[in-house]
Amino acid sequence: MSKRALISVTDKSGVVEFARELNNLGYEVISTGNTFKTLKENGIDAITIDEVTKFPEMLDGRVKTLNPYIHGGILYKRDDKSHVDTVNEYKIGSIDLVVVNLYDFEGTLKSGKAHEIMIENIDIGGPSMIRSAAKNYKDVSVIVDIADYDMIIEKLKTNTLTLEDRKNLAYKAFSTTARYDSLISTYFAGEVGDNYPDILNLTFQKEQTLRYGENPHQNGILYSQPNAKNPILNYEQLNGKELSFNNLNDLHGCLEVMREFKDSKEVVSVAIKHTNPCGVGLGKDTFEAYSKCYEADKVSIFGGIVGITSTVDEETAKMMSEIFLEIVVAYDYTQEALEILKKKKNLRVLKLAKIEKSLQPYDMKYIDGKLLVQDKNNSLVEKCEVVTKVRPSEEQLKDMEFGMKVVKNMKSNAIAIVKDGKTLALGCGQTSRIWALKNALENNKDKDFKGSVLASDAFFPFSDCIELAHEYKIEAVVQPGGSINDKDSIEACDKSEMSMVVTGIRHFKH
Amino acid sequence: MSKRALISVTDKSGVVEFARELNNLGYEVISTGNTFKTLKENGIDAITIDEVTKFPEMLDGRVKTLNPYIHGGILYKRDDKSHVDTVNEYKIGSIDLVVVNLYDFEGTLKSGKAHEIMIENIDIGGPSMIRSAAKNYKDVSVIVDIADYDMIIEKLKTNTLTLEDRKNLAYKAFSTTARYDSLISTYFAGEVGDNYPDILNLTFQKEQTLRYGENPHQNGILYSQPNAKNPILNYEQLNGKELSFNNLNDLHGCLEVMREFKDSKEVVSVAIKHTNPCGVGLGKDTFEAYSKCYEADKVSIFGGIVGITSTVDEETAKMMSEIFLEIVVAYDYTQEALEILKKKKNLRVLKLAKIEKSLQPYDMKYIDGKLLVQDKNNSLVEKCEVVTKVRPSEEQLKDMEFGMKVVKNMKSNAIAIVKDGKTLALGCGQTSRIWALKNALENNKDKDFKGSVLASDAFFPFSDCIELAHEYKIEAVVQPGGSINDKDSIEACDKSEMSMVVTGIRHFKH
Repeated sequence: MSKRALISVTDKSGVVEFARELNNLGYEVISTGNTFKTLKENGIDAITIDEVTKFPEMLDGRVKTLNPYIHGGILYKRDDKSHVDTVNEYKIGSIDLVVVNLYDFEGTLKSGKAHEIMIENIDIGGPSMIRSAAKNYKDVSVIVDIADYDMIIEKLKTNTLTLEDRKNLAYKAFSTTARYDSLISTYFAGEVGDNYPDILNLTFQKEQTLRYGENPHQNGILYSQPNAKNPILNYEQLNGKELSFNNLNDLHGCLEVMREFKDSKEVVSVAIKHTNPCGVGLGKDTFEAYSKCYEADKVSIFGGIVGITSTVDEETAKMMSEIFLEIVVAYDYTQEALEILKKKKNLRVLKLAKIEKSLQPYDMKYIDGKLLVQDKNNSLVEKCEVVTKVRPSEEQLKDMEFGMKVVKNMKSNAIAIVKDGKTLALGCGQTSRIWALKNALENNKDKDFKGSVLASDAFFPFSDCIELAHEYKIEAVVQPGGSINDKDSIEACDKSEMSMVVTGIRHFKH
Repeated sequence: MSKRALISVTDKSGVVEFARELNNLGYEVISTGNTFKTLKENGIDAITIDEVTKFPEMLDGRVKTLNPYIHGGILYKRDDKSHVDTVNEYKIGSIDLVVVNLYDFEGTLKSGKAHEIMIENIDIGGPSMIRSAAKNYKDVSVIVDIADYDMIIEKLKTNTLTLEDRKNLAYKAFSTTARYDSLISTYFAGEVGDNYPDILNLTFQKEQTLRYGENPHQNGILYSQPNAKNPILNYEQLNGKELSFNNLNDLHGCLEVMREFKDSKEVVSVAIKHTNPCGVGLGKDTFEAYSKCYEADKVSIFGGIVGITSTVDEETAKMMSEIFLEIVVAYDYTQEALEILKKKKNLRVLKLAKIEKSLQPYDMKYIDGKLLVQDKNNSLVEKCEVVTKVRPSEEQLKDMEFGMKVVKNMKSNAIAIVKDGKTLALGCGQTSRIWALKNALENNKDKDFKGSVLASDAFFPFSDCIELAHEYKIEAVVQPGGSINDKDSIEACDKSEMSMVVTGIRHFKH
């Protein structure tokens, strides 16, 4: 008996040539509805599923391959005498090669179709055949990827398709069905409004093998989530080396700060180092914003990432090119600016798509076999309550908002001291709050903090921070509040004629 | 025509009672192999699949339900005249309720069976029926969870099973098949040795809804990975409130530091705050280790987590209870110690399973729709090369190892200054290396650093850190090396008669 291949594909690219080669190799080709039509029109020798099943395709194609003449032919063990006897007795022909790609649920999802259409695009027969063939990979080859057609033909021609090859094909097959149902279950989660399902299925597609991970001795890979909505890393690279693992992680940090200012009329410039902002500046134009960002901390910016929510002009590009930066990311570049930046052949220059509101429902942290999942922190403040005798000035209120947007995106404990839309001193990642403040100030001893605003990511457990801030002539404080000792800090402010605003929303970030 | 239910379950818990209720409600029950046997033995009125399919179960049960008489009966649209005509013409009876649970691939996986047995435990017919029924949820109810039996019966009795209910059942069904194939594809990834597959399917099970996420305005959930090997968060809670999102994240940080010392003959005690170690002590016993850990930083430990790789005794428990801690985690507690700790009713007291080598192949960071995946950082040093004229003493070499184990687990840039198995000053999460050192020293001005060791998570870009270290009488330095300016730091050491060891492995952590 000749070998038989079952071909049932939604994406018909390359299938005619593939089937022709199979014909040439002596395979009888069995096929379904439209695939059969395509093959026949192109002169392939094929038979319909009906001829095998002795049963019609029915219910608009909902039932065609779900049949023992198909699945028996795939699933019987070739080296099991009773299995062979059974298929012989029932005249079930062997199916040795299963070539399936599925109804395009993912593409339909992306084009945002109505629920009824989504449902019609859930393939039932396809995954069943794929899974049958993969289970019986010892005897059957399952091909789910068009990119594998040539390799398969080559190996069949040279009789070198091994058990190991078929095991790899089976692996790919189960990865494909898992991904397919993961996308369907995530779609249903959205339909029924379940952000935190009992079973959380996540599927990712390899986007890029990175040079290494956080450190050279670790492998690193970038994956993308096919059902992610509007991911923030959305850019075109105009110059420079490939982004590294740490670049991508830092870039994410940079873009999240920029996102805080997405609706701002001013331009924001952010410098990032080790995922934390080290300088942030607001300006009427790119040059002013970048200048403030750079002035904020001329040391830490070295080797960092700079992001700008506008077009980089010549003047700014010149100033940028005076120091070593890993990445510049902006909405656009003037021709002159781009030429200047491109002179540094390693400098990664990225043109960013407009930053939108985050549409990912969650953040997550993988902790060695467990996963902590939480709502993405899309809030800034709940209220703006002045709790001191002195009220902040309009400028200070504006700086409070600015400072809170910065400090929210720093690792806790975090303190940001800001003035006139510019960070003066930042302290983050500290194990005590007073240290975050002390270090911020001591690292910037030469600066004048008079009239500046202190923003804190969480409440003050004691009044020590206020007292230290006063020593440095900081005049206004913004913090979430919520400590049992809030009154101590408020009293300390009143005593020093400082103002304090309480926002009601804590911003721990780890 | 009476309603029909198809029941095919591997786990037969509750199925007899469920089927009896279906009988009482007028359902004809169709069933397969062993399920049929169980039902019949318990007096349930059921018919076999064969009676429906007019075809035998065959190939050791590999093919039984993959049949148009089953799938047609499930999949036809009840409100589509041509569908109804078709099923009538072919005498395909309606199947309105599909009750399936799958071959126990997950359980078989956990019991570590041979590959052939794993393959036999891949269910083919079950997922097909589940998926058919879920696709046609408009007309069919699919039950994949034994826990839903009572709800279904109740709703059938009161005629209140709505379209929305069936949609939720379909959602659960696709989540179940996605999870099933995710586990299979992960199993195959292991079989073929593919840590970083093109398609990465991850599946998680909700373990606990947390009070909130990192901040009160964010929802937080703890998930566990069913195929995780030996996850590090493996403890029994003996006292106190439920763990919070931040507790779990910090606890993970604490356990990772403890893991560095899993083979140490000495006891280690670690204090964690905001995921970073704030004090670490090595001792011959619990009391000594904890005392050193506490003395290391009496301020930051407040509100932190303390971990101990031994049994907590009475003396240590007394000392612990003098300050406010969120969590104590240790291998065990004496009866007396436990009684002392339990007096604080909110203190979370955890009894930890022995910490083993990490078996998770990777770490990952979710960055808003993308995922950065990397090898877990399981290395410490590649070499121990003395690059200075002065050699470190034996004690200093021991402290170098100790310091490197600590600094590896701190957020970058990180510096740990240690002596005699105790941290003296820690600086982390800084945007420049000199700041990490400066802040560490300035936060601990009162301490004597003579003879101590400085450990750095990455190389020194300049010699400034060495010069500052020398001012504080630090005598030995351990660092990965690899800067183009390494020689400047080495010369600075030689000039000050300090020793330096280069390890060859960087430990950035973000």
